[in-house]
Amino acid sequence: MNSGEKIELLATPQDYNFGPGEANALELDCGRKLYEVNIRYETFGTLSAERDNAILIAHALTGDAHVCGKHSPDDRKPGWWDNMIGPGKYLDTDKYFIICSNVIGGCSGSTGPRSVNPATGELYNLDFPVITIADMVRAQKRLIDHLQIPKLLAVIGGSMGGMQALEWSKLYPDMVQSTVAIATTHRLAPQSIAFNWVGSQAIRSDADFDNGNYAVNPEHGLATARMLAHITYLSDESMEQKFGRNLQDADSYSFAFKRDFAVESYLEHQGQRFVERFDANSYLYITRATDYFDLSGGGSLAEAMKPATSDFLVVSFSSDWLFTTAQSEEIVKALLANGLNCSFCEIESSYGHDAFLLEVDRLGALIRDFVANQRKKF
Amino acid sequence: MNSGEKIELLATPQDYNFGPGEANALELDCGRKLYEVNIRYETFGTLSAERDNAILIAHALTGDAHVCGKHSPDDRKPGWWDNMIGPGKYLDTDKYFIICSNVIGGCSGSTGPRSVNPATGELYNLDFPVITIADMVRAQKRLIDHLQIPKLLAVIGGSMGGMQALEWSKLYPDMVQSTVAIATTHRLAPQSIAFNWVGSQAIRSDADFDNGNYAVNPEHGLATARMLAHITYLSDESMEQKFGRNLQDADSYSFAFKRDFAVESYLEHQGQRFVERFDANSYLYITRATDYFDLSGGGSLAEAMKPATSDFLVVSFSSDWLFTTAQSEEIVKALLANGLNCSFCEIESSYGHDAFLLEVDRLGALIRDFVANQRKKF
Repeated sequence: MNSGEKIELLATPQDYNFGPGEANALELDCGRKLYEVNIRYETFGTLSAERDNAILIAHALTGDAHVCGKHSPDDRKPGWWDNMIGPGKYLDTDKYFIICSNVIGGCSGSTGPRSVNPATGELYNLDFPVITIADMVRAQKRLIDHLQIPKLLAVIGGSMGGMQALEWSKLYPDMVQSTVAIATTHRLAPQSIAFNWVGSQAIRSDADFDNGNYAVNPEHGLATARMLAHITYLSDESMEQKFGRNLQDADSYSFAFKRDFAVESYLEHQGQRFVERFDANSYLYITRATDYFDLSGGGSLAEAMKPATSDFLVVSFSSDWLFTTAQSEEIVKALLANGLNCSFCEIESSYGHDAFLLEVDRLGALIRDFVANQRKKF
Repeated sequence: MNSGEKIELLATPQDYNFGPGEANALELDCGRKLYEVNIRYETFGTLSAERDNAILIAHALTGDAHVCGKHSPDDRKPGWWDNMIGPGKYLDTDKYFIICSNVIGGCSGSTGPRSVNPATGELYNLDFPVITIADMVRAQKRLIDHLQIPKLLAVIGGSMGGMQALEWSKLYPDMVQSTVAIATTHRLAPQSIAFNWVGSQAIRSDADFDNGNYAVNPEHGLATARMLAHITYLSDESMEQKFGRNLQDADSYSFAFKRDFAVESYLEHQGQRFVERFDANSYLYITRATDYFDLSGGGSLAEAMKPATSDFLVVSFSSDWLFTTAQSEEIVKALLANGLNCSFCEIESSYGHDAFLLEVDRLGALIRDFVANQRKKF
């Protein structure tokens, strides 16, 4: 490497296995236990001697532990939040010790439905227990204990990552100095449950699905589910700007049931890219975890959040119709009712839900300053 | 029947066949022709001697010619707009001659992909030509000619019916005294095209689809497409009010990938009811017709609507996110720019797009008064 080139952040995936036996099992909300759980994670930066600079990043629905940097300089792309995290970036790895782990139920290294069930030697598939957001957080807590970090400076997440961050603040208040919940909700709305249901039916109706015991990923159904979800990640405004009614490869309609419109080609591309990296069973499990997510337990959110003590930063995006500003405001109201410090910002953006990955400059500055203040208070 | 009982409006389906041969063929936007086209239609009330009281109702995506009344007193349900149309109702069949026909491409009596191709003696299936909203209107025009009605008092439609009404006003201005376009758009937005694409993929991936040559309706894929579309017909607000996060048959989550939520059971029910009455190929053809719908031809809507001369009533619903008030306003602006009489009303409603079928009292009063005024101007 020439001395003039920028030195890239290199990431090394690591594994933490809870170990065998009853004592190490992870108890789940469904009443079952997971044995020999593995957590795939990556860390960046250095844990301070005072252990006061650790930040846990919780990933979204189809994210993974590879949050920034590259595994090899030859990698085509860096981790999913590389514009946010790294040396000198908004979450500065010269200052902070950043941890990101793949959720249980996932398909990127942590124990999930395509893992081998140690009790049978076979893949779990649909015998994998139905997990919850709280279960994901309980597994992360075991990792943080393993890393001997008594208290996190911040737990930060967008979308489903925000659900985990909120759950952390409720389940383990003594371990959380601050919580950053971005483009998220305290409970999934029926419209979102409905979209997830349709997506799950598309997967289950794929001829290759075989009730979860597929030899090859049921790509058609999974791509359909992804295309549907992807629509909910964009705003009608951004789709209008990006595609309008533009045709893809022609000057006029084909009159032949082909992909005429640019937006159709875009969706197909997103679907195809997705099935190369994501597993259908994992998709069913993780979307179900979000369906089940209701921090209020069906009652008062303020009451349910009584255990939380951390400071909060809540961020929404104006054109996000999946997890709306109104939903963020419900969270803020409950936290303020509990006398907690809660900053709230709605960022004007036309990008819809995806803005949490795209509006990095405005979001990053907010997070940078919030976390710097938290370090002083730690 | 006891004399005290309300006498029900009885409806008799009728057929108009264009007849064989080149001279009777219907020329389509795609460049192909349809031969021996049949139009299924129903009429209510009596055509006046002056022939000045005929109203054409254009149905929505999955509607049919059976707009009101019952085919038999024993029918469980009347036609789809029975609360709007009938003796003494908002569209009073004692005053007006109401006509409603099934669109071509449909599966309720008019020529569509499951009709027999007279050239081959086989079902068209995917050999049926891809049709447009304008093609549907051209076929309706032939029916109106057949009925010897020189000019319609009004063409009225909601959703895809509104698209047809607008197309009528542009294609046959001399035949349209007034146009009522409800909960509609002058062109399908990319978000709607995207939802249609996902629905079409769900149908095509059904193992029973067989490239359209199915022996039995590919119910699973068609139900999935319908469930998806149905979400876009409701508002998040109405889903919250109607279902919230209510569970269907239990006090707690099943943790078993069952239909836990009331909204899931509702969608499944809608999907199942739909596949009993609608054909998968028709669904592909008719949704494609809406994808292709762009009254502006890609340019200025006002310019494209220059031929129109009728008076207009445009109605939107505040919570309709499929065809929004903003989209209705674009239509209104173009018509006003052309110096036409155009009344516009946004009705406050939480029902979403479905409001055009549910807010019958507020919508009905508007239409009743508008049409009465048009009769005076006729």
